[in-house]
Amino acid sequence: MRMKKKGTLVVISGFSGAGKGTVCNRLKEKYGYSLSVSMTTRQPREGEQEGVEYYFRDESEFLRLIDYNGFIEFARYVDHYYGTPRQFVEDELEAGHVILLEIEVQGAVNIRNQYPDAVLIFITTPSVGELVDRLTGRGTESPEIIDKRMKRAAQEAMSIDEYAYIVCNERDRLDECVEQVHAIIESSQTMTERNRAFIKTIQEELQDRTR
Amino acid sequence: MRMKKKGTLVVISGFSGAGKGTVCNRLKEKYGYSLSVSMTTRQPREGEQEGVEYYFRDESEFLRLIDYNGFIEFARYVDHYYGTPRQFVEDELEAGHVILLEIEVQGAVNIRNQYPDAVLIFITTPSVGELVDRLTGRGTESPEIIDKRMKRAAQEAMSIDEYAYIVCNERDRLDECVEQVHAIIESSQTMTERNRAFIKTIQEELQDRTR
Repeated sequence: MRMKKKGTLVVISGFSGAGKGTVCNRLKEKYGYSLSVSMTTRQPREGEQEGVEYYFRDESEFLRLIDYNGFIEFARYVDHYYGTPRQFVEDELEAGHVILLEIEVQGAVNIRNQYPDAVLIFITTPSVGELVDRLTGRGTESPEIIDKRMKRAAQEAMSIDEYAYIVCNERDRLDECVEQVHAIIESSQTMTERNRAFIKTIQEELQDRTR
Repeated sequence: MRMKKKGTLVVISGFSGAGKGTVCNRLKEKYGYSLSVSMTTRQPREGEQEGVEYYFRDESEFLRLIDYNGFIEFARYVDHYYGTPRQFVEDELEAGHVILLEIEVQGAVNIRNQYPDAVLIFITTPSVGELVDRLTGRGTESPEIIDKRMKRAAQEAMSIDEYAYIVCNERDRLDECVEQVHAIIESSQTMTERNRAFIKTIQEELQDRTR
């Protein structure tokens, strides 16, 4: 028996504007990781493609999938449903692949409860000042919108404690962030808690041979 | 406030013959990590140099250092003392460096109790068969010696559960093992539990701004 590479579910969340989408795409390009595509009932926006940004479905189909336990998590925001299709995640894990899930903080804990081996990573700006800069934008946004973003970020911040890792995505240093996430994924393969069967075999065989 | 790179104490143990010394030396060369040198009261062997393999001291000096709390761990094997000098470890951690400690399984738990952030890594052969091959050697060893090695390996195996990570060092694939240990060290810097102060600052500042 040898140590096996197992499938790894990686949950990536972070402040809006921290660039988690860019990080996920770069990881997919560079390391061939799979990227889960969410399903939604909202209309595609200009330039959005079926199966790339989202799978676009009508509400009756979405509700049927909920009934069939077809999502590992779903939520309703502003009159539309958003969910992570179960089948793709399960297939990729079975195949031993690394699968990235970009998801809001509310869904992350839910996923960890179902997949205790999931690796939860929170992407942040390197400083609060920079975060505020990104949230306030170029001074063209209304105070109401800025206030709403800030409140949301404050809520997201309170969820960081649920994540195992926090990684900074610094402006113009995307590669550094990508390498750190990659190191986290690599290291998760070598956690003893994920290699119990291999360890047990070693322990038992050595006990047998010294009896 | 930004995320700080902190000093990291990395404890490397493993089966004898699994090549942990080679892994540590390669990590030092390639990534500039510091390597802790143990102190011993035994005589230097042919080719061993003061401060490279060990610091060689007489027993009275060693006992005095024990008195002054000068070791983070020490043990007595076969009439000789072996210990890890505290000062170097503390200085390196203070300086924010990564410091590697190659140590027997008995000392590792002791160290984790003193340094809860220490990263414990166990180096193994990729299969039990290969381990047995290495322990039995080239057929030139007496059955007594092989039996003794096997018993020791069986004991070491029971301690693997104390380690956070297990990494295979496969024959002719040293670099792969070195990269895995490096990924573990990199990822440990981004653990939320090691960045509590930074996270607390983000949370408090965002709370303040949305009040």
